[in-house]
Amino acid sequence: MSQSLLCPDAFLSPLEIDKAVTRALAEDLGRAGDVTSIATIPDSATAHAIVVARNGGATSGLPLVAAAFRRLDPEIAITAHMRDGVTVVAKTALMRLTGSARAVLAAERVALNLLGHLSGVATATHEFVRRVKGTRTRICCTRKTTPGLRALEKYAVRCGGGFNHRFGLDDAMLIKDNHIAVAGGIRPVLERARASAGHLVKVEIEVDNLHQLDEVLTVGLADAVLLDNMSVDDMRKAVAMVAGRFPLEASGGITLDTIEAVAATGVDYASSGWITHSAPSLDVALDIDI
Amino acid sequence: MSQSLLCPDAFLSPLEIDKAVTRALAEDLGRAGDVTSIATIPDSATAHAIVVARNGGATSGLPLVAAAFRRLDPEIAITAHMRDGVTVVAKTALMRLTGSARAVLAAERVALNLLGHLSGVATATHEFVRRVKGTRTRICCTRKTTPGLRALEKYAVRCGGGFNHRFGLDDAMLIKDNHIAVAGGIRPVLERARASAGHLVKVEIEVDNLHQLDEVLTVGLADAVLLDNMSVDDMRKAVAMVAGRFPLEASGGITLDTIEAVAATGVDYASSGWITHSAPSLDVALDIDI
Amino acid sequence: MSQSLLCPDAFLSPLEIDKAVTRALAEDLGRAGDVTSIATIPDSATAHAIVVARNGGATSGLPLVAAAFRRLDPEIAITAHMRDGVTVVAKTALMRLTGSARAVLAAERVALNLLGHLSGVATATHEFVRRVKGTRTRICCTRKTTPGLRALEKYAVRCGGGFNHRFGLDDAMLIKDNHIAVAGGIRPVLERARASAGHLVKVEIEVDNLHQLDEVLTVGLADAVLLDNMSVDDMRKAVAMVAGRFPLEASGGITLDTIEAVAATGVDYASSGWITHSAPSLDVALDIDI
Amino acid sequence: MSQSLLCPDAFLSPLEIDKAVTRALAEDLGRAGDVTSIATIPDSATAHAIVVARNGGATSGLPLVAAAFRRLDPEIAITAHMRDGVTVVAKTALMRLTGSARAVLAAERVALNLLGHLSGVATATHEFVRRVKGTRTRICCTRKTTPGLRALEKYAVRCGGGFNHRFGLDDAMLIKDNHIAVAGGIRPVLERARASAGHLVKVEIEVDNLHQLDEVLTVGLADAVLLDNMSVDDMRKAVAMVAGRFPLEASGGITLDTIEAVAATGVDYASSGWITHSAPSLDVALDIDI
Amino acid sequence: MSQSLLCPDAFLSPLEIDKAVTRALAEDLGRAGDVTSIATIPDSATAHAIVVARNGGATSGLPLVAAAFRRLDPEIAITAHMRDGVTVVAKTALMRLTGSARAVLAAERVALNLLGHLSGVATATHEFVRRVKGTRTRICCTRKTTPGLRALEKYAVRCGGGFNHRFGLDDAMLIKDNHIAVAGGIRPVLERARASAGHLVKVEIEVDNLHQLDEVLTVGLADAVLLDNMSVDDMRKAVAMVAGRFPLEASGGITLDTIEAVAATGVDYASSGWITHSAPSLDVALDIDI
Amino acid sequence: MSQSLLCPDAFLSPLEIDKAVTRALAEDLGRAGDVTSIATIPDSATAHAIVVARNGGATSGLPLVAAAFRRLDPEIAITAHMRDGVTVVAKTALMRLTGSARAVLAAERVALNLLGHLSGVATATHEFVRRVKGTRTRICCTRKTTPGLRALEKYAVRCGGGFNHRFGLDDAMLIKDNHIAVAGGIRPVLERARASAGHLVKVEIEVDNLHQLDEVLTVGLADAVLLDNMSVDDMRKAVAMVAGRFPLEASGGITLDTIEAVAATGVDYASSGWITHSAPSLDVALDIDI
Repeated sequence: MSQSLLCPDAFLSPLEIDKAVTRALAEDLGRAGDVTSIATIPDSATAHAIVVARNGGATSGLPLVAAAFRRLDPEIAITAHMRDGVTVVAKTALMRLTGSARAVLAAERVALNLLGHLSGVATATHEFVRRVKGTRTRICCTRKTTPGLRALEKYAVRCGGGFNHRFGLDDAMLIKDNHIAVAGGIRPVLERARASAGHLVKVEIEVDNLHQLDEVLTVGLADAVLLDNMSVDDMRKAVAMVAGRFPLEASGGITLDTIEAVAATGVDYASSGWITHSAPSLDVALDIDI
Repeated sequence: MSQSLLCPDAFLSPLEIDKAVTRALAEDLGRAGDVTSIATIPDSATAHAIVVARNGGATSGLPLVAAAFRRLDPEIAITAHMRDGVTVVAKTALMRLTGSARAVLAAERVALNLLGHLSGVATATHEFVRRVKGTRTRICCTRKTTPGLRALEKYAVRCGGGFNHRFGLDDAMLIKDNHIAVAGGIRPVLERARASAGHLVKVEIEVDNLHQLDEVLTVGLADAVLLDNMSVDDMRKAVAMVAGRFPLEASGGITLDTIEAVAATGVDYASSGWITHSAPSLDVALDIDI
Repeated sequence: MSQSLLCPDAFLSPLEIDKAVTRALAEDLGRAGDVTSIATIPDSATAHAIVVARNGGATSGLPLVAAAFRRLDPEIAITAHMRDGVTVVAKTALMRLTGSARAVLAAERVALNLLGHLSGVATATHEFVRRVKGTRTRICCTRKTTPGLRALEKYAVRCGGGFNHRFGLDDAMLIKDNHIAVAGGIRPVLERARASAGHLVKVEIEVDNLHQLDEVLTVGLADAVLLDNMSVDDMRKAVAMVAGRFPLEASGGITLDTIEAVAATGVDYASSGWITHSAPSLDVALDIDI
Repeated sequence: MSQSLLCPDAFLSPLEIDKAVTRALAEDLGRAGDVTSIATIPDSATAHAIVVARNGGATSGLPLVAAAFRRLDPEIAITAHMRDGVTVVAKTALMRLTGSARAVLAAERVALNLLGHLSGVATATHEFVRRVKGTRTRICCTRKTTPGLRALEKYAVRCGGGFNHRFGLDDAMLIKDNHIAVAGGIRPVLERARASAGHLVKVEIEVDNLHQLDEVLTVGLADAVLLDNMSVDDMRKAVAMVAGRFPLEASGGITLDTIEAVAATGVDYASSGWITHSAPSLDVALDIDI
Repeated sequence: MSQSLLCPDAFLSPLEIDKAVTRALAEDLGRAGDVTSIATIPDSATAHAIVVARNGGATSGLPLVAAAFRRLDPEIAITAHMRDGVTVVAKTALMRLTGSARAVLAAERVALNLLGHLSGVATATHEFVRRVKGTRTRICCTRKTTPGLRALEKYAVRCGGGFNHRFGLDDAMLIKDNHIAVAGGIRPVLERARASAGHLVKVEIEVDNLHQLDEVLTVGLADAVLLDNMSVDDMRKAVAMVAGRFPLEASGGITLDTIEAVAATGVDYASSGWITHSAPSLDVALDIDI
Repeated sequence: MSQSLLCPDAFLSPLEIDKAVTRALAEDLGRAGDVTSIATIPDSATAHAIVVARNGGATSGLPLVAAAFRRLDPEIAITAHMRDGVTVVAKTALMRLTGSARAVLAAERVALNLLGHLSGVATATHEFVRRVKGTRTRICCTRKTTPGLRALEKYAVRCGGGFNHRFGLDDAMLIKDNHIAVAGGIRPVLERARASAGHLVKVEIEVDNLHQLDEVLTVGLADAVLLDNMSVDDMRKAVAMVAGRFPLEASGGITLDTIEAVAATGVDYASSGWITHSAPSLDVALDIDI
């Protein structure tokens, strides 16, 4: 909370930071630790190091970087030049460190893997956000995240200027084709959902075509509608039909090539799984001087 | 071990499978579970489902898929059509399931996220492997993995036909520029490494140029040499200089564009961080019939 | 999922069941287990046992009871007469068991503590629900739960016929006096909330008086309003003012004495912390015959 | 140990404090944290807050309160006015805090839930203790505790001036009717118990009537006897029969209505499950000024 | 509980078995598993194996052995010839297995390490027990156990025919010199202990000489006395002085050389740290036929 | 890393230290903590204490000792006189402490158990190392370690001057008789191993006789050979045959009685399971002055 490295508009639990860093260090240190440095670097040696973004992008993961180095050297001196949630150009120095050389070398890869992965997600998100600037469309993520990293990746999406969809199956209802089929149609499924949902649970329903959307408008009861794999043309018609009564989310086929056309339709949200499950890592490095 | 879904040439601990599946389910189910299905699907409903690879690629993660569904419905019937470590064309059915509809829907996204991510890594690896077919070059991974998923991603690399580099800092020595500098040169660093390493620890040293390689050849003591960011031309010379005395690993700038030229030089290994940290997810889906 | 003991309208994760049962058994078995039974009961002895509700109430926790006994005797035979979410009269047999006498005795207290606690919550909830029957008012819980048992107690509330408020700080926004004060008033706080919240996050705001409610109506942007410690009279006026534009939740001073008057005002929800943090345990017992 | 907030006569492991606080924070923060405060409170804002007991009672849980706030803001300033194990009147300020406003708001409910629950147990215990003042009777707890909270609730019982019964099945023998029946009577069961128990394990036996008590007196071998659901009259006779040879514990039907009569019989211990499984939460609050 | 491999007179929690086996397998399998067998043994190969005690001794750990193999091959066929708590001669076959060859080889070392260690403790204990046969002296352990293995080693002591001392600091009081000194003498320390201890907590006090023992006899209040590093002569006098009023435990310098003389003094317990912290492993092996 | 108590030539992860200390404290403190000290020592009392090696030996475990005391009293003052990896004579003071008396007494046994166990391993190792001084033979450990303590015991071996064999099944290949038999001989097994192993995995093969060794020399492909239970005479012949082409490890029957003769043969490594699975604990104590 007092960790000024966090993106001010988003949350990453200190418990989650500790767990992620501990897990990542444990898998890299293994049972014998950095055997190369133990053999070749005196345990009294000190290192100075700079965390650098080799490519430009949006930052995410700096609190985890600091935590990784501190976990191995509690007395390491850290000066941050950036915090999460900013965009930087290539070759930007993000953070400076002075501490035990063995600790710096042992935590290096873990710190960079965390920063590279999350900044990759933030950068991909930010690229979409940049394209929709000036429109009403917000970029949002999905539940197609890397297993075990959901809270971190959802945070990274916020760092990149995006919005979060559901964090899990439990924090909102999203009614899909199977639910509609089993319940026997759009009206009964929405009635069942409303009968079950409390007043703090949103109900979104997925529609494949404008006919279904029309039915949702007739029934009411939905808080939001997901337009699944619709053409840009149909999206535009959907926006007109709904006329602001509830938010519309465009999903399916949202890429950097299509996003501007999608945003031009006036949908409220465009959601992409790609920004979490397939965004390439941002190229980050540690320049070390022992 | 008796889990015939595992790639026969690689290992994924049943402990690791349980942990990964539990972690992934926990983060998706959250505190209230699949509130949509609870509201709209009777708890007695049964679903039939097929796990499908929408795109072609190399499979990895099927034991985790089975484990995820079994974790929520211990009596689910599973028929596997494929195991890990095979290549499939687009639209291949990988596995069939019949079980509790609520369980199938609740585990769907977790199963697909695991399968898509690992098959993405396997597919990327396999693409490299395909390009070097007929050469002596083996494709291998690095420690640039997604934090928390190292054992899984290393397994996926094997599923794609690749080889594993170090699993962590502890299972082999890799001497880099900082180690050389602090130790005072190639001879002293290799002597220190050998004095510390037991007989079951390999010592690899990274060189930037042929001059350094020459020094390594003079000193001896190395089990392998990493050629860091060398030109294809220098790689070819390095292969000639070493003449099979130890394996040579090319690293840095290994892409699908360069891999064939690199392999043509005769290096023993070409290592890529991209296949683990930036490989896009394979497109997999669950076709459900309730 | 296939566990037919679960209340059909609610969810309790099998992961959560395992964790809760393991934790409870671990704290009761300690390091040496049931030293009394080891000393006095042959390890080959078999016990027949009946889980009985000594008092009437609403059931919650039967899947945990089964899991506790199975954890110590995987081959125990269990016949359930009831499932979670039903109301029973005093002296109802809920479940029959036949298995290892030592296992039955060792798991007895853990099973009863789980069942008694959760059925206590369900019974308290159900008592409120019974009083509001025929009105539009739904009973709901709060975040005032027993530490470590939130998911279980929220499930128990559903078993008793209640609805769930937020599961945590993260699944909906609830704007309170401090948030309003820091943001500088009702309009700015609601605007900030909306600017930050995605389309699947509800925004509820707490008001102390009808003047504030009026302001909320003017501003719009809220999905629900919490009437904090208002008189029944003011609640009635609030219902009239809002006229169904969003749900109203009455909170503060909701007791069995006041609930009927509160429900008569027409509020949509009445929320009580007492049903989770102070509901007395339901009296349940195990009749054993070895 | 150096935590002066602990009750001086009781123990709560720092490991247990960390675990309880982490678990409670994790379940409240969820995956996205305090989304309301992130949206509406600047991350630089500071809050002053006072933990207040709204009702009078016995304190228990203050070290957990401090730990919860520190976990989210390691630099928070905390001034304690009270420690655990004291009795306070209504409206007593227990602790003052100055720290990150977001951290204070995010930890508030967790801190209060812990404090309210444990102080509720301590207060209930203390109420019994107050009634027996001047008699030889000590109030003690049972194993009927809230699942997962045994160590904490046993500690709270000590904070309220009570004594602890067994912490689990493993730290003493308590012979009940089933054990007696299987072993073939009071003599054989006590002999088996003694043959198995080491010299640091107490053996208590439960009797339903004075005839059984007489048999225990004849056999000897017991360290304590539990009088199960006996009338006050029989308790008095039991005290006379035993004449101080071992402690007598009255159990069953111990309520605030009966406790004084029970204590008047001269029994050494009166044990109540109600003080742990059904004590209402103490009303505690946080007054915040941001 | 239904696990007939457990010693019938002792307890080992199934939770503890799972934890110990999982931890041991995880540290041996590491991140890549049994790389040798994956390379050289087909995954379809079946192995027959026999667990053999190469030396004679007392068995302890067979349920862990079975659990380790089952964890890697849930369908392995296991036939036990012995259970825990028996003494066997050299070359005794303890258990037969038929299952996946890879699983058998991967679990082999873990299974043997567990069995060898615990049977080593049981055998050492049994050797002491054998020497005191026919006397009233019971052999018991201490808290000088291998870190992390206390519950397992205490169980092994029971398998060898010994008795357990305290399992931890919490299940009995043992007053030592520092406690006596701070409290200001034997009377005040025993009074403080009694004032704090409930009726199910034994109080033992350590004395260095007969003068102190005399004082304990005068004060009363102690449930047992530990004779610390006393001569055999003084032990004999102590036995006479106490005359059965409470158990006497001889501690310090208890070895196989001294135990018979110690037992001849008539003390009730002789406790040894050596049987847990320094007992050599029993030589056990796995004969495999693939 | 900055923990100067670690042996400079070896590694023990701070994560592993925390886990080991937490686990050991948890099992000793149990649910109620040090009930004796709570009853008899004021919570304000301060203790001075000295950690002493009563016998001479090699030190290992001092960072764990410091961590154990700090875990219970974060403000304890610690002055170390020794670090891990040195040899000390009997009665050497290793560390001085000043802190909460209750914390010192509560952590005492855990600290000593950790230090005694690991220093026992280090001392046993060192005794072997001392015997081979001046020869080319290095002492190394095996995978026959105490379950759950592998990383700690491997570290202790290094503290005693020994070398580490494999840390688990995954960090090197060791081909044994079963692998050879299934693969159909020494040539095919080595070819399979090489085909599977990457360039950072050593391949060692176990041979029973010189004939097999000859075959390994013919085939090549092995990085090291383990001479299993060979006579000293055959070891000498093996050394001559191999002539330094790869390291030779003597295994089986390595005891303090045989080690000098084994070393005289010129083998590179002599490995002993005894130093980890059966080394007696070093006698260490805490002298306390409250």
